[in-house]
This record gives sequence, C-alpha cells and structure tokens, in this order.
Amino acid sequence: MKTKKLHIISTGKQKPEQLAEIIGVIHPYIDFIHLREKTKRAKEVYEMVELLADKKVPLSKIMINDRVDVACASNVKGVQLAYHSLPVEIVKREFMDLTVGCSVHSIEEAQIAEQQGADYVIFGHVYSTQSKPGLIPKGIEQLWSVSESVSIPVIAIGGITPTNSREVIEAGAQGVAVMSGILEAEDPLEAVKQYRSYLSE
Amino acid sequence: MKTKKLHIISTGKQKPEQLAEIIGVIHPYIDFIHLREKTKRAKEVYEMVELLADKKVPLSKIMINDRVDVACASNVKGVQLAYHSLPVEIVKREFMDLTVGCSVHSIEEAQIAEQQGADYVIFGHVYSTQSKPGLIPKGIEQLWSVSESVSIPVIAIGGITPTNSREVIEAGAQGVAVMSGILEAEDPLEAVKQYRSYLSE
Repeated sequence: MKTKKLHIISTGKQKPEQLAEIIGVIHPYIDFIHLREKTKRAKEVYEMVELLADKKVPLSKIMINDRVDVACASNVKGVQLAYHSLPVEIVKREFMDLTVGCSVHSIEEAQIAEQQGADYVIFGHVYSTQSKPGLIPKGIEQLWSVSESVSIPVIAIGGITPTNSREVIEAGAQGVAVMSGILEAEDPLEAVKQYRSYLSE
Repeated sequence: MKTKKLHIISTGKQKPEQLAEIIGVIHPYIDFIHLREKTKRAKEVYEMVELLADKKVPLSKIMINDRVDVACASNVKGVQLAYHSLPVEIVKREFMDLTVGCSVHSIEEAQIAEQQGADYVIFGHVYSTQSKPGLIPKGIEQLWSVSESVSIPVIAIGGITPTNSREVIEAGAQGVAVMSGILEAEDPLEAVKQYRSYLSE
C-alpha cells in the first residue's frame, strides 16, 4: 500500500509562535500544513507563513485556507477552498501555480469540485468531533461513497485518531486531516508519529 | 483646475441587487467604485462584481477592499488595502496589474504607503461622520499636512458633503470618497451630480 497523506490543520486557537514551535518540530512527518485561521486578517496569516519559514518548515507543504492572495504572495503550495471561497475553476484559471484543495460534505460537492479542477477534496466530518459539536457525523460509509464517486484523492477529516485512520484508508481515503489530535496533543511529535505509523503500513 | 476624482464606497449594508441598481445609474459620474463589504465572503464579493458588470458598470472603475484575490479573479481595476491587509509592496510585486490604494490615518502611514508603491491613499476621516461615531475627526489641517507630505494623490474621506468638498480640494486632496452621502441619498443620481459639480469647477 502506498503511503497515505497526512494533513494537519491549524485550530485557530493557538498563538502563531506556539503553532510555529510545534510545526517546526513535526513537519518532517507531515505532507500538508493548513493555516486555517478564520479570525485572522490577511497580514497576520502572511506573517504566520514567515514564522513557519523561520522554523525551516518547507513552503511546499503549506496550504492557506480561503485566502488565495495570501497563498500567492507567500509562495506556498496552495489553497484550501470552502463553499464561500472563490470558485475552484476561477482559482485554477487565475492562479495556475497553486494546488487547490476543496472542502466538501457530500458526493455532489465532491464531484463538482473535481469537475472544476480541484486537486483533491477534504471530506467530513467522518466521526464525531469536538470542532463540530452536535452535528451528526457523515460516517465511514459516506466516505466510501465519496471515494468511489471521484478520481481525485479524498482526504478524511473529523475525529480521526491513529487507530481509526486505518478504517478510513480502507474506505478509500487517500489520507487524513487532523487538527487537535496532533496540535493539542500533550506530545505532538509522538502523536504525529502514531498517525504516520498507521498511514504507512 | 483639473477635475478631481470621485470615489464611492459601498456601505456594506445594502443588498447586492440594490447596490448594483444604484451604481448602474450613477457610475458615469464616478471614477472609482469600491466594494467594501466587510462581512461578505470572497464568493459573495466576486458575485457582486458580476452583478455590477451586468449593469454595464466598467470593471476599470471597480476597486475591491482588502481581497486581492477577488480583485485579480474579477479583472477589476485594483484593491484598497488597510493596515490589516497584505503589505502594499507585496501586492505591487505579486499582482502588478492592479492599482493599489491604501487607507491611511496619519502623515507617517501615508509616507510608508507611498514608499511601498501605493498608487494613491485615502485619508480620513476628515469630518465627523456617522460611520465613525465618537471618534475625533482628523480635520482639514491634517489633510493639508498629509497632502504636502506625499506626491501620490490623497483622497479625502469622512463626512464629505458637496459643499465641503471644495474645502478639501483646496487643502490639497485630489478627490473625495463618499459612502452614505451618495448611496443612501434619497436621489443618488442627484447627489452624485452635486458632488461632481463641486469637483469639476
């Protein structure tokens, strides 16, 4: 089995310096680092990328949530788009160098993202998660259906643990996206290694 | 005296269709139309530009607040940046086709904007205005000082009326920026013509 991708997504709650400190340590075990800082303005996110670069985090692993301009100006890998972002096809046309991921919540959304040129989708939330309290998770079967319905990689998000990540991979996911499970772990390096061990077998 | 510029700035309170309706009528009298929609997401602002284009508003008059990516994707004239936006020099370097305006509140900020390559600055608020309740206006003398301190055009904002626009022009402003004074006027076309008459003499 080919090694699956491990995405890490910032929680928006950690201070930039704290986040940079953690990612500076764990980035060798991670494929994509998403800055998803919903309350921060463009300049702050731009400066967060500079902090990560200072910690020798490769720009080629960094994805910016929603702000295509910040991604472009920072020379990072790409952007993660949501339903309220610029349309995928527009971003692919106007910002050709960027990798474009799209956050989806159904088969239909995943198929539209693929048609519009998304390089991958993040689908969730698969399991119950603190970050989506009270919302019914999509479950492993819907993950399987989404994986079957598109040919671009599907990354699973939401309540993913090291142990259940094997199940999501078996359901067709090409990787997992993790927030607090790594970034808020007591030992983030140990946590990331655990995820990695289940994704590399 | 050369004709001075008239900028109009959306209030963020009007519905997109309503705003497009008004601007569709008054745009021939305006030099720059700013979409300053702080609570709207990228996709909504992008769609607002489409609405304006449907009303035959020239894209070459439209400026987008803060979102460089939306400006770029919409092929409009440029962006209006604030202190929390991407830095002016980065935007000028990465998005060379865009006109870049910068919102400033002091001589120092105006000079920095000029050094970084801003095409013009908007300075204010000059007079008391409903949109800045409780804040002391900068006043006409500070406008004069700012105009003296940079060689790029200074556009005055804040409480500008048709009659006091002559005073701000005499203080060195190369134009005025108006929000509610036109967009919330009982007759926006009549209002814009009044401003224009004072700016063209």
